Amino acid sequence: MSEVKFKKIALIGIGLIGSSLARVIRQKKLADHIAISTRTGTTLERARELKLGDSYTTDNGKAVEDADLVIVSVPVGSSGQVAKEIAPHLKPGAIVTDVGSTKASVIRQMKPELPDNVIFIPGHPIAGTEFSGPDAGFADLFINRWCILTPLPDTDEKAIAKLTQFWEACGAKVDRMDPEHHDLVLAITSHLPHLIAYNIVGTASDLEKVTNSEVIAYSASGFRDFTRLASSDPTMWRDICLNNKDAIIEMLGRFSEDLASLQRAIRWGDGQALFDLFTRTRAVRRGIIDAGQEVDAPDFGRQVARKHPEDLKK
Amino acid sequence: MSEVKFKKIALIGIGLIGSSLARVIRQKKLADHIAISTRTGTTLERARELKLGDSYTTDNGKAVEDADLVIVSVPVGSSGQVAKEIAPHLKPGAIVTDVGSTKASVIRQMKPELPDNVIFIPGHPIAGTEFSGPDAGFADLFINRWCILTPLPDTDEKAIAKLTQFWEACGAKVDRMDPEHHDLVLAITSHLPHLIAYNIVGTASDLEKVTNSEVIAYSASGFRDFTRLASSDPTMWRDICLNNKDAIIEMLGRFSEDLASLQRAIRWGDGQALFDLFTRTRAVRRGIIDAGQEVDAPDFGRQVARKHPEDLKK
Repeated sequence: MSEVKFKKIALIGIGLIGSSLARVIRQKKLADHIAISTRTGTTLERARELKLGDSYTTDNGKAVEDADLVIVSVPVGSSGQVAKEIAPHLKPGAIVTDVGSTKASVIRQMKPELPDNVIFIPGHPIAGTEFSGPDAGFADLFINRWCILTPLPDTDEKAIAKLTQFWEACGAKVDRMDPEHHDLVLAITSHLPHLIAYNIVGTASDLEKVTNSEVIAYSASGFRDFTRLASSDPTMWRDICLNNKDAIIEMLGRFSEDLASLQRAIRWGDGQALFDLFTRTRAVRRGIIDAGQEVDAPDFGRQVARKHPEDLKK
Repeated sequence: MSEVKFKKIALIGIGLIGSSLARVIRQKKLADHIAISTRTGTTLERARELKLGDSYTTDNGKAVEDADLVIVSVPVGSSGQVAKEIAPHLKPGAIVTDVGSTKASVIRQMKPELPDNVIFIPGHPIAGTEFSGPDAGFADLFINRWCILTPLPDTDEKAIAKLTQFWEACGAKVDRMDPEHHDLVLAITSHLPHLIAYNIVGTASDLEKVTNSEVIAYSASGFRDFTRLASSDPTMWRDICLNNKDAIIEMLGRFSEDLASLQRAIRWGDGQALFDLFTRTRAVRRGIIDAGQEVDAPDFGRQVARKHPEDLKK
């Protein structure tokens, strides 16, 4: 059993992250009571069927009453509205955190709404899959993943330590950053990759001379690796784009500049420049594997069912 | 046992594809004799240690003597040279094929070198991993993957049928295409994805404000999916870029145009345009999964070792 424990944790939003939190909180006994709140009635019913919490409501204000930890897991564009709804109902001394993929914008939206007698500590667990909704969560989601906290100046260190302990109990490693730096780091490690993935899948869908069924049939040659990211939740990603605009545009600019340079090397047959780029990028994957953030197996260790036609005949 | 059988198959090049062929040819008894030839002495020794063939040489001409099937599996930029070396030693009536990722260029390079009394059928199995060399191959590589043949006009249909049977015996499904159409299809499904992947990893490595160790630590949020393709064999990919220039530049142009439009939507806060793009790309992944070319499990079914810190203490 973990040493960190809350009397009541309120989970606002019960999608992939919220429902994973519900599961690990239960498994690790991190709260006496889990209150679940979500905007949509059908999602709430599903959470109840899955027995994710101890109480269920579509009223965010009601959910946070008496909670000593409130975790907001909604698309970042909705953080301000949620803060407004929960503010009058928060217990003095409660820790309020979030899991949003952008931090400066979430702080701009939430901070002015929240009362001074609660402790607001913005956070972002770097974990997820391409699936969404309460069925998509699992208790192990945060294990060996980083959770970045971006506390504001003069935040109570004891509260930060307690939230850190909470995430560690969930299996995560915790790091601290300035919100602006977080947004820049995530723009390159997460936001740009998703945009590139969405974009190439869009480009491939719009060709006149290559059909969609050809793209699908021959996707194993590289394309399919992009489709995982490109099937992530559209609302979540729309909100990220709208809420981390400057950093994303900065990274897109750099990427496009580099791509133009690569295209020039191809046009002019500069084999050495191509070889050099294709060589230096290898080391990065090695680093990610060594850091335990990736599997070493070919094809991500994809377990595609391989049945030999000859064997099927037997 | 399969119905297709060759007396002697010569494998020119014993990397990922060549060594996978060696293994499946042995497993399925598709030849009485497997002759292996490769340029580098150490690679040849490794192939011998792995017992991949029945005879071993660094002399491509010697390897193809008396062979009724010759499979050239070298970087596409070397196809012309290989054709020149094997031409004087080919048995009349032999089938000569290749596995290169570009087809028009391979035909331009090989066709003029080969004698008229052999049957040249260019081919391309759409299969591979990010690993290379004789150790990287495995007999199941081609199962449920497509192999595209791009025969020239007036090629003996019996020979095409025999090569088709061979690939089917290796587990592949066989399709036929014009070489030019193949190069366009692969430019979008394979070449552009690899270039984009190499490019983003390059961009991420060159930032002043975000360190490489931050990119590595937080890569699970999307970036790491690109690093698999970006760790593919540099020589192979340099050659592909140099040998499918027109189709690649065409696809890069479309991609960049779409990306500029996406960036504009972000700059001007056009949430509806973003949401629409992010929604329509989802269907493509579904198609790939339904076609049996991808796994349905979250995160590609990555089997990352997840050990909970609390459990480790027990």
